[in-house]
Amino acid sequence: MATQGQVITCKAAVAWEPNKPLTIEDVQVAPPQNGEVRVQILYTALCHTDAYTWSGKDPEGLFPCILGHEAAGVVESVGEGVTEIQPGDHVIPCYQAECGECKFCKSGKTNLCGKVRSATGVGVMLSDHKSRFSINGKPLYHFMGTSTFSQYTVVHDVSVAKIDPKAPLEKVCLLGCGVPTGLGAVWNTAKVEAGSIVAIFGLGTVGLAGDFILTKNSYLIIVNSSSLVYLLTQSLTTLNVKVKEKNKYICLLGWGTSVIVGVAASGQEISTRPFQLVTGRVWKGTAFGGFKSRSQVPWLVDKYMKKEIKVDEYITHNLSLAEINKAFDLMHEGGCLRCVLAMQK
Amino acid sequence: MATQGQVITCKAAVAWEPNKPLTIEDVQVAPPQNGEVRVQILYTALCHTDAYTWSGKDPEGLFPCILGHEAAGVVESVGEGVTEIQPGDHVIPCYQAECGECKFCKSGKTNLCGKVRSATGVGVMLSDHKSRFSINGKPLYHFMGTSTFSQYTVVHDVSVAKIDPKAPLEKVCLLGCGVPTGLGAVWNTAKVEAGSIVAIFGLGTVGLAGDFILTKNSYLIIVNSSSLVYLLTQSLTTLNVKVKEKNKYICLLGWGTSVIVGVAASGQEISTRPFQLVTGRVWKGTAFGGFKSRSQVPWLVDKYMKKEIKVDEYITHNLSLAEINKAFDLMHEGGCLRCVLAMQK
Repeated sequence: MATQGQVITCKAAVAWEPNKPLTIEDVQVAPPQNGEVRVQILYTALCHTDAYTWSGKDPEGLFPCILGHEAAGVVESVGEGVTEIQPGDHVIPCYQAECGECKFCKSGKTNLCGKVRSATGVGVMLSDHKSRFSINGKPLYHFMGTSTFSQYTVVHDVSVAKIDPKAPLEKVCLLGCGVPTGLGAVWNTAKVEAGSIVAIFGLGTVGLAGDFILTKNSYLIIVNSSSLVYLLTQSLTTLNVKVKEKNKYICLLGWGTSVIVGVAASGQEISTRPFQLVTGRVWKGTAFGGFKSRSQVPWLVDKYMKKEIKVDEYITHNLSLAEINKAFDLMHEGGCLRCVLAMQK
Repeated sequence: MATQGQVITCKAAVAWEPNKPLTIEDVQVAPPQNGEVRVQILYTALCHTDAYTWSGKDPEGLFPCILGHEAAGVVESVGEGVTEIQPGDHVIPCYQAECGECKFCKSGKTNLCGKVRSATGVGVMLSDHKSRFSINGKPLYHFMGTSTFSQYTVVHDVSVAKIDPKAPLEKVCLLGCGVPTGLGAVWNTAKVEAGSIVAIFGLGTVGLAGDFILTKNSYLIIVNSSSLVYLLTQSLTTLNVKVKEKNKYICLLGWGTSVIVGVAASGQEISTRPFQLVTGRVWKGTAFGGFKSRSQVPWLVDKYMKKEIKVDEYITHNLSLAEINKAFDLMHEGGCLRCVLAMQK
């Protein structure tokens, strides 16, 4: 590629400070270093977690930064030591890495990966603890290891899922966050059994994805069966902690399970009487639905291609990168499930 | 038996009101009704849950009542419809019933039983929602369905574990609460695996029983392995909610499990940031260590007889029923693990 090894200047939506409109800027994207991949982002969706960090309520939020974490694109170039990804691969950047080598990946008990967290948690890349984004020499922080609100981004190779090149990127970009989170909260975390009753708090994309799976597996969402599992999703940018608190009290004694999905503002807590737990209720949470990113996102794409899971139905709006502030407005107004931005227009 | 079908007048320690010394009274114990068993209590131990209700902090506490729930004795007589228990059987009264027929018992997922809870929760017997204890016609409430601080008590047949008559009742009375709770929190609830690191908060009988099992199975209690499970026990009459809150923050990311054991005062809550759960920690609780009472207490007695679990080591004091207030003082002073009262002296 003509751009390999070169700095690419492209358009990106920059969050300069909390709550101020994003501005479309010409951003310099440095070449990928050791263990890194530079991706041309073709489509990105907006998620409430982007809005959450943008709002300033995220205790880990850093500014200025490039937000975005639910996207799909094509690999432009790869850095040293990258063996499993090549230029031209169709990929979904994943905010949960999967190195396959750390104690978490090897545990068989979690989809969390420890390899790059020390860097992604502070908005930089692992190899040199620096950012690949800058404007006239002033660095911009990465976000969630993905920063997909840019026409080009640099991600760690352990955070890139290579997918079927036949999959429509303008649809499967949703498999980078919301849809797997809802599906996985039901499948992997709550492990909902046939006959269970499930209450879902928050029917955005995450909740509806969970709801779809329940319906597909013939579970009923009524309230008089022998099992009651609570699946909770975030319904607003600021997660409604009070709703989360409420759910614990109506979860079935004995083995009712409450699953927390999403993020809360700094200092906000959930609480319960110890008696609720002593009498058999379990409180869990899920990140990315418990799915392992590099190995299972391609599998989810295949399931979508076979029409075994829904994605298209959650896309209510399509806009361009230049219209990103309008897209956030739509999300806050509540009439929008997912708005997909065409990034190269 | 000469007493069958008759009211028995015997000695019992009565809690007239919160925090006032128990008094030894002549109490009338009515004959067992349908589905009930009258038991001569030979030995009872004191547990912090007795002190908790006695303190007035238990929102379900009712007065006047006869406390006590960790005991062993011999069946004096049985009521109508009781088929599996006979006069002369050696038994441990169990505060967790096991009817084998309710949705909880049939679920295979919990040791909680729903059959008699509506009665035991309000200090009476199921068949007529009345007490079997009285003093000159004034009823006294039952406690936890057991009320073992009496020389004779009446319990539901679904709450009686029939044990090996060769077992020493002055020892195996501890298998009515504390020891199974600690063992089961490790075995059944946390499902601790080899190589796990476990922190136990509160080294009373419950905590030490958990510690014994960990040691026996070659688990190490240090802090640098790949797994970290938090097992929490109550160390004071009033459970230390702050300690419970602390443990959630040090439980391993990914799959660390925190198990709550014991009771808290009315209004006291435990809390955490949702992030703690979203990143893989699980919050659970256990009642009676997850053991099914009627089917597993006899099995625990057998394990004790084969010296596979410890019991004797937790008995630090032996007193008589008349000395029960002294026994509570010993417990509060902290130098006592379990004090066993000889009830017929």
